[in-house]
Amino acid sequence: MKFLSDNTAPATPEIMTALAQANTAATGSYGDDDWTKRLDSAFSDWFGTPVRAWAVATGTAANALSLACLSPPWGAVFCSEEAHVLRDECGACELQSAGARLVPVATDAGRIDSAQLARIVADHPRAVHSVQPAAITLTQATECGTLYTPDQIAAIGDIARAQRLPLHMDGARFANAVASLHCHPADITWRAGVDVLSFGATKNGAMGAEAVVFFNSELAAQFELRRKRAAHLFSKMRYLSAQLIACLEGDWFMAHAERANQLAQRIGVAAGPALRWPVQANMAFLRLDTGRQQQLRNLGFEFYPWGTEAESSIRLVVSWNQPQSDVDALCEALSAWS
Amino acid sequence: MKFLSDNTAPATPEIMTALAQANTAATGSYGDDDWTKRLDSAFSDWFGTPVRAWAVATGTAANALSLACLSPPWGAVFCSEEAHVLRDECGACELQSAGARLVPVATDAGRIDSAQLARIVADHPRAVHSVQPAAITLTQATECGTLYTPDQIAAIGDIARAQRLPLHMDGARFANAVASLHCHPADITWRAGVDVLSFGATKNGAMGAEAVVFFNSELAAQFELRRKRAAHLFSKMRYLSAQLIACLEGDWFMAHAERANQLAQRIGVAAGPALRWPVQANMAFLRLDTGRQQQLRNLGFEFYPWGTEAESSIRLVVSWNQPQSDVDALCEALSAWS
Amino acid sequence: MKFLSDNTAPATPEIMTALAQANTAATGSYGDDDWTKRLDSAFSDWFGTPVRAWAVATGTAANALSLACLSPPWGAVFCSEEAHVLRDECGACELQSAGARLVPVATDAGRIDSAQLARIVADHPRAVHSVQPAAITLTQATECGTLYTPDQIAAIGDIARAQRLPLHMDGARFANAVASLHCHPADITWRAGVDVLSFGATKNGAMGAEAVVFFNSELAAQFELRRKRAAHLFSKMRYLSAQLIACLEGDWFMAHAERANQLAQRIGVAAGPALRWPVQANMAFLRLDTGRQQQLRNLGFEFYPWGTEAESSIRLVVSWNQPQSDVDALCEALSAWS
Amino acid sequence: MKFLSDNTAPATPEIMTALAQANTAATGSYGDDDWTKRLDSAFSDWFGTPVRAWAVATGTAANALSLACLSPPWGAVFCSEEAHVLRDECGACELQSAGARLVPVATDAGRIDSAQLARIVADHPRAVHSVQPAAITLTQATECGTLYTPDQIAAIGDIARAQRLPLHMDGARFANAVASLHCHPADITWRAGVDVLSFGATKNGAMGAEAVVFFNSELAAQFELRRKRAAHLFSKMRYLSAQLIACLEGDWFMAHAERANQLAQRIGVAAGPALRWPVQANMAFLRLDTGRQQQLRNLGFEFYPWGTEAESSIRLVVSWNQPQSDVDALCEALSAWS
Repeated sequence: MKFLSDNTAPATPEIMTALAQANTAATGSYGDDDWTKRLDSAFSDWFGTPVRAWAVATGTAANALSLACLSPPWGAVFCSEEAHVLRDECGACELQSAGARLVPVATDAGRIDSAQLARIVADHPRAVHSVQPAAITLTQATECGTLYTPDQIAAIGDIARAQRLPLHMDGARFANAVASLHCHPADITWRAGVDVLSFGATKNGAMGAEAVVFFNSELAAQFELRRKRAAHLFSKMRYLSAQLIACLEGDWFMAHAERANQLAQRIGVAAGPALRWPVQANMAFLRLDTGRQQQLRNLGFEFYPWGTEAESSIRLVVSWNQPQSDVDALCEALSAWS
Repeated sequence: MKFLSDNTAPATPEIMTALAQANTAATGSYGDDDWTKRLDSAFSDWFGTPVRAWAVATGTAANALSLACLSPPWGAVFCSEEAHVLRDECGACELQSAGARLVPVATDAGRIDSAQLARIVADHPRAVHSVQPAAITLTQATECGTLYTPDQIAAIGDIARAQRLPLHMDGARFANAVASLHCHPADITWRAGVDVLSFGATKNGAMGAEAVVFFNSELAAQFELRRKRAAHLFSKMRYLSAQLIACLEGDWFMAHAERANQLAQRIGVAAGPALRWPVQANMAFLRLDTGRQQQLRNLGFEFYPWGTEAESSIRLVVSWNQPQSDVDALCEALSAWS
Repeated sequence: MKFLSDNTAPATPEIMTALAQANTAATGSYGDDDWTKRLDSAFSDWFGTPVRAWAVATGTAANALSLACLSPPWGAVFCSEEAHVLRDECGACELQSAGARLVPVATDAGRIDSAQLARIVADHPRAVHSVQPAAITLTQATECGTLYTPDQIAAIGDIARAQRLPLHMDGARFANAVASLHCHPADITWRAGVDVLSFGATKNGAMGAEAVVFFNSELAAQFELRRKRAAHLFSKMRYLSAQLIACLEGDWFMAHAERANQLAQRIGVAAGPALRWPVQANMAFLRLDTGRQQQLRNLGFEFYPWGTEAESSIRLVVSWNQPQSDVDALCEALSAWS
Repeated sequence: MKFLSDNTAPATPEIMTALAQANTAATGSYGDDDWTKRLDSAFSDWFGTPVRAWAVATGTAANALSLACLSPPWGAVFCSEEAHVLRDECGACELQSAGARLVPVATDAGRIDSAQLARIVADHPRAVHSVQPAAITLTQATECGTLYTPDQIAAIGDIARAQRLPLHMDGARFANAVASLHCHPADITWRAGVDVLSFGATKNGAMGAEAVVFFNSELAAQFELRRKRAAHLFSKMRYLSAQLIACLEGDWFMAHAERANQLAQRIGVAAGPALRWPVQANMAFLRLDTGRQQQLRNLGFEFYPWGTEAESSIRLVVSWNQPQSDVDALCEALSAWS
């Protein structure tokens, strides 16, 4: 029973169908195909505002290429201390931006505190001796499985605007966030001041497709060249684009996110006081001593320890196709301890 | 009737089957899956020698990451003047290597002449003022649709060894080369001195998968970190690996290459004296004035002009699923002029 | 009365004499001159061990080029949270290393605590997803005007060796450190596990010259090419080298450091409880409210506020040629408050 | 008798005086000094138009930082095939620009032919697959000791403007060019369409100082941060600036260039038919078999072979302080053969 990550799951039937449908006649390469040409309008419709959208294959590519469009090589990009861009991308942002520095900001339950962010950005030196404030990035849902409310994002958006810094959102689990907040996607992006979004599809059932969505098209000027140079322009681009179109146009994509969220909620309830942070997306984090971790493993559950408190904390991620029986069994085991 | 590029073709049924077979249970991510774990042995078997093999999604990634393992930022990488890495990758090699310089070498029918290469490498200054000779890369099949014989590659391999430079091969159409030469894959790679190969699958029927094959495993030490940092480590890596395994383990892969080669041969024959270079893979290049180019377009043929002599030269590429009737029609049209 | 920085001071008479002596006949360029050829032996003598030494013109160049030799682009370089490389070099390390990440370690009075460093380095993830531990850098004298004892450096050297990480020292005020500790230069460098030193001369009286000293010559292989590529190989290199030779071969260099240290000591004593950290080199840091800061300014003293507590803290730096009367006047003003 | 390079010469007495005059009281660091503050106005006066000017210490820094302001990482910078940026800077341009590609253009006697340049730039592909035309750089005086006339530069300026590419000039021997053409410095820079100039002082008598002069101030926005990050912002900047001011404000600077040009002229005359290119600055290039090269060496002359025809060609460079007797002796030796 795998609770390791939502990227252990296969692709959904809808994705496989979309790929099959895209796999017919010869078509133009490098994005000169019907699916890719529809990306802008499909994302514009979904977000309720005109956007520019490009497909890439990995979340790391989406994040690093986005931030490279926002920061010069001598820029400082403010991120949460748990941010994927900081901890899990092996310097991808530094590569694509030619050296921009990620400046970690302490978080509460995975969320950057806007007051603290404001202070850090304001205090950052602007003299020629220092890297220069260039962008802010936040993650929704956060690496701790929590969410920013629309107001919390807007507060960060206000800081960004006041400091003339563009605002990026890492939305590797964006669908889970929207499903949980029961909000319009716009409420936590462009209406709240987000300029660029890494829109995640892979973790929620795609085979391998993410989008970079620019709400501020001025920032997008370099994107296509950056993507090509980064080797992320696919010759058979239709297969990426078709996946993204399938995510946006069917109900299944949000339904899967909703379902995974609810299963994770159940885990959170069963965990009782062991729960570290409220379950707001499809992940639950538990304080659990190594003895109990081993007991769970003995019962057939797979999961990762979490953070530097590895010996006593674990992460449980629910995938789109997680059997309900997995969660039933897990809740039963956890309930016995709470 | 598309003769634009072999990347306009869809994926083969075998690839779609392989993807479906990989799309079952949850599995480990980032390469911790059964398909990825078999890559080394599958490629080792195919090449008849122990190799290290990694999957990436684009040929540009394969080339740029390979060369970045071979050259320091101040290195000179000798390539043909038509090389894809030089002309069609928007500086990807420079990005991944942090600045290595591509040094073009004039070619004859797409092939680097070994005597000229030897002279250029030997004459390249070694003082601290200059970028330093670091690697050689050649393309098989070449961008002109021609092939190096095993002996021609071995001659370049000898130069590489004499100058202590690693030798890379861009094999975007490697299958076409092997099929055409009726040789063992080893004969044009490690037996001839090639250290690293960008093994192409996408152009010959994959959906999007290439391999980087290191025959010299010492050079591979940095590859995994470079791939991750370049955002080319896929969380659902199994879908890339499954494609590559399917290419290596079925007969269809080489059969498709063979078929495309033969159809291209027919075009070359039909072209008569208009043919610029011998057809040795799945491409034919023709001298054709713009009037005749337009006549072909009027007949429904799609193709690209070629090179700086755009006004009078065209490239015709045969895809794995090219209908024979396309080629029949094209040959008929061309024969009328020759 | 300038206490802004020791780089506001002019060059010493000995430096001017050395430049004049180097300014005679034509000589080889790019280091092919008598002064540059003597650098290795002069530094080897000074440190009592065979070293490789190269001249550069700025401390930032010395640091960034050193670290670039120690870290791959995906490396993590552990440094103090106040480190010049982190706060005052505008991303120079990231540029020269093609993206290495500086990881700040909290300090006590400017010194990295070895136990905390050991924990942070040990806890740093090694999986492919993360930047990889690559090097440690510490500053002697620290940015807070304090010193590591030889034992404290050796403790960090032990961590470095245990983790197989090279150890760099930013010695912008190295002479002040040696003078204050009354130790042999070896005691706080190679005997304590330091592999590479940025040896500062400019702040202690040179016109503009620093050395990069490799105690571990294996790490130096790339240095010359990196320096050239960074545009820090001077055609008239003799003028840099002559400055460095003059620093090493006369008594004046250490005498100036000693004098500046003693004057700074007097300021520390006069400051009484306002002193933030013990004065161990040529700088004193004082807690001082803005009213008193203004009073000092009204008396003609120039200095910088310090850190994020700018409103209540100041830095006072004594230069090699600081008139004793400046210090007398400053001590008198401070004594009135303590 | 050294004819190796003009950078083998010492600094002029005027430079030494300027350094001594700058070496008095404490002054602001990092350019906050009287000499640096005068750079803009001094260069504006000299060029007869408002400019922004910054000091750096090496010509390579001037070139690489200039071009990095003009080209994105995926840019193509068109240069002559003999250009110093291409052949003698070990990839400095690639480093500072994060990967821009230098595209060599064939030359006639060191000069880029404007018609050929126009064709190459126009033919350069603009699709996303290719590096993008970004800038043009030319060298005045050229690496072959020849000069562009004002009209020839203006023709290249017209191409640059037509293609919307900024135009850079490497003026390592700019003074020699102005002195030889008897023109106003404006005639071969901003009036002819040059946007940025690397103004050389070191080769004509400075100790180590070059200026980057922006005639188009919009392009200069990033320069200060780029210079700092490249470790070329000197703490004791006054010593660089004072050298540059001294060059601009005395007659000696142009007088030295004029003198060196005239001495080189004499060598050219003496060489007779062995002269490869007209002597228009302070260099003469001769076809000379190795036997005669050795004879010259036996007579005490030092010089470098030139180019790939090293065995039969030499470069002779006259320095500002070249004894007239050196030239007398050389001319005598050469005259015997012509």
